[in-house]
Amino acid sequence: MSAVRRETGSVSAVRRETGSAIDALRGGVDLGGTKIQAAVVARDGEVKGEARAPTPRDGGPDGVTQAIADTVREAAEAAGARLDTLEGVGVGSPGAVDEEAGTVAEARNLPDWEEEYPLAARLAELLGVPVALGNDVQVATQAEFELGSGRPYHSLIGVFWGTGVGGGIVLDDEPWLGRGASGEIGHTVVKIGGRRCGCGRLGCLEAYAGRASMEAKARRMVEEGHKTELFEIMAKRGRERLTSGVWDRALRRDDPLATHLIGQAVEALGAGIASAVNLLDVEAAIVGGGLGTRLGEPYVERIRQAMKPHLFKDGDPPAVELAALGDLGGAIGASLLAASRA
Amino acid sequence: MSAVRRETGSVSAVRRETGSAIDALRGGVDLGGTKIQAAVVARDGEVKGEARAPTPRDGGPDGVTQAIADTVREAAEAAGARLDTLEGVGVGSPGAVDEEAGTVAEARNLPDWEEEYPLAARLAELLGVPVALGNDVQVATQAEFELGSGRPYHSLIGVFWGTGVGGGIVLDDEPWLGRGASGEIGHTVVKIGGRRCGCGRLGCLEAYAGRASMEAKARRMVEEGHKTELFEIMAKRGRERLTSGVWDRALRRDDPLATHLIGQAVEALGAGIASAVNLLDVEAAIVGGGLGTRLGEPYVERIRQAMKPHLFKDGDPPAVELAALGDLGGAIGASLLAASRA
Repeated sequence: MSAVRRETGSVSAVRRETGSAIDALRGGVDLGGTKIQAAVVARDGEVKGEARAPTPRDGGPDGVTQAIADTVREAAEAAGARLDTLEGVGVGSPGAVDEEAGTVAEARNLPDWEEEYPLAARLAELLGVPVALGNDVQVATQAEFELGSGRPYHSLIGVFWGTGVGGGIVLDDEPWLGRGASGEIGHTVVKIGGRRCGCGRLGCLEAYAGRASMEAKARRMVEEGHKTELFEIMAKRGRERLTSGVWDRALRRDDPLATHLIGQAVEALGAGIASAVNLLDVEAAIVGGGLGTRLGEPYVERIRQAMKPHLFKDGDPPAVELAALGDLGGAIGASLLAASRA
Repeated sequence: MSAVRRETGSVSAVRRETGSAIDALRGGVDLGGTKIQAAVVARDGEVKGEARAPTPRDGGPDGVTQAIADTVREAAEAAGARLDTLEGVGVGSPGAVDEEAGTVAEARNLPDWEEEYPLAARLAELLGVPVALGNDVQVATQAEFELGSGRPYHSLIGVFWGTGVGGGIVLDDEPWLGRGASGEIGHTVVKIGGRRCGCGRLGCLEAYAGRASMEAKARRMVEEGHKTELFEIMAKRGRERLTSGVWDRALRRDDPLATHLIGQAVEALGAGIASAVNLLDVEAAIVGGGLGTRLGEPYVERIRQAMKPHLFKDGDPPAVELAALGDLGGAIGASLLAASRA
């Protein structure tokens, strides 16, 4: 049984929800630990204006909420749209998101954000338009499903390869959220007793493939005497972290340590994604995230190859595709939340 | 968000399908590589009669089909029911099952069963009642969901720990079949570069927890000079294989090699089931299969503990429960197929 392509003209249950006035614009916000990315998006997914700001380190949830509002205003200006003409604003957030209540708790990469905070209500006050919340990775998956590389499929997993490794799931054209915290493909155990993950556990996929874990490992290896240009490239580019761009440059220079660590990351992604496919037998896996987007198709091809030895149904592999919406996928996906609540 | 208990009085979509005349009896067959287990089952899941026969090694698919028919007849006699009063017969089969076409192919643990074979049509001819097919593990999962330990839950995975490690999935009260081959939790990669599995791949959960793999490993360890009573117990009990009963006896005698290998199996099951839960965030995992059923609750508790270090949402673990229907779960689940097609 091979993947059934969705007809271009078909309107899925999800798509119907997103349909409304032809010219309707919506705001979408991808709230990250480092930056706030806002976009004003048309019904067909076209980005009419965007803006980006660093996530403030001071001021707690109130400070972050104010920064989100400012960034959305800026994106609306860039789109030439008045804020009060937006159908609504969606926010894709890390942490424990309660979509119904409009609250976010335990967003550990945001400042002082342990307690439950009424983000939707506070942001709606500041903006004067309705606000809807969703999980950051799930909305990015939904964006790829509705508007990106996932369009031909009814079932898929989104794999976001960046600082961590996040995942989202669509089954039978609908998001699968489980008890509210599905998609943690980054915490698939790919090696019992293996490398320690940022989450504290051993042998997680993210311990090998997450950018934060890879940077920590690279620092340890340098202390042990290994040579690499990674940190020189970082310094030259004025970065404090090994960004996706730094990894990309080091790989292009055939830096042995970078090549070794990215090789392990690809191997771990191959094992983890293949395990998810063996369990769910979805039609496709869509690979995005900061590193996925930056390294692009040649590395998606390497992940395809790394999955092969582990796929139970190896004669009929799923499609494995690069995310189409790039860095804006999260904000575009968040704008779909506004649409579905409108 | 904790698991929502299904109300006892509620009728799920699945249950509605199974409802029909109060006294209706159905046949169910669990077709395995070693034995054919047939049962005649009432609407409420009560087994009215059962019969068991070895799976014939000669005669190919026709021979097996004849043996299934004979075993169903015997179960009907045991139930005091005429064959032609059965609503239908369901068969849970290994291999590539096409439920719509009523065919089975690539059933590699059945004799000479590579090509597609019209099992439903041939068996219906022999029995004179309608026959429906399903995947053996998925029907056993469905049985636990509808009538066994899975009753309180809307989403679960079934994990069948026996010769291999099979899995079935129920999401939002419905089986999730993917592209027709979901549930291969036994081929989750728990250790990149790890032990070779019966499937030929490296590091699969089944390579550590499947009875066939554990026996192969035990034989290698004996050749290397390790001591164990496993093979003495096997010989004394007139077995040719390390059956679940043999493992159980050796564990009760604190046999070091058996204890070591079962410890590794529990560790692999913990990692693999936790990974599946991290991905799907289901309410429950139901542990059955020959070994699961034989070793029972104390080992389910060990699996619960082995999952803990790997669960991303460790403050809110899923329920992990022993399968309630035991060895007859597969046949009972198959009888539900007959009901849903009736």
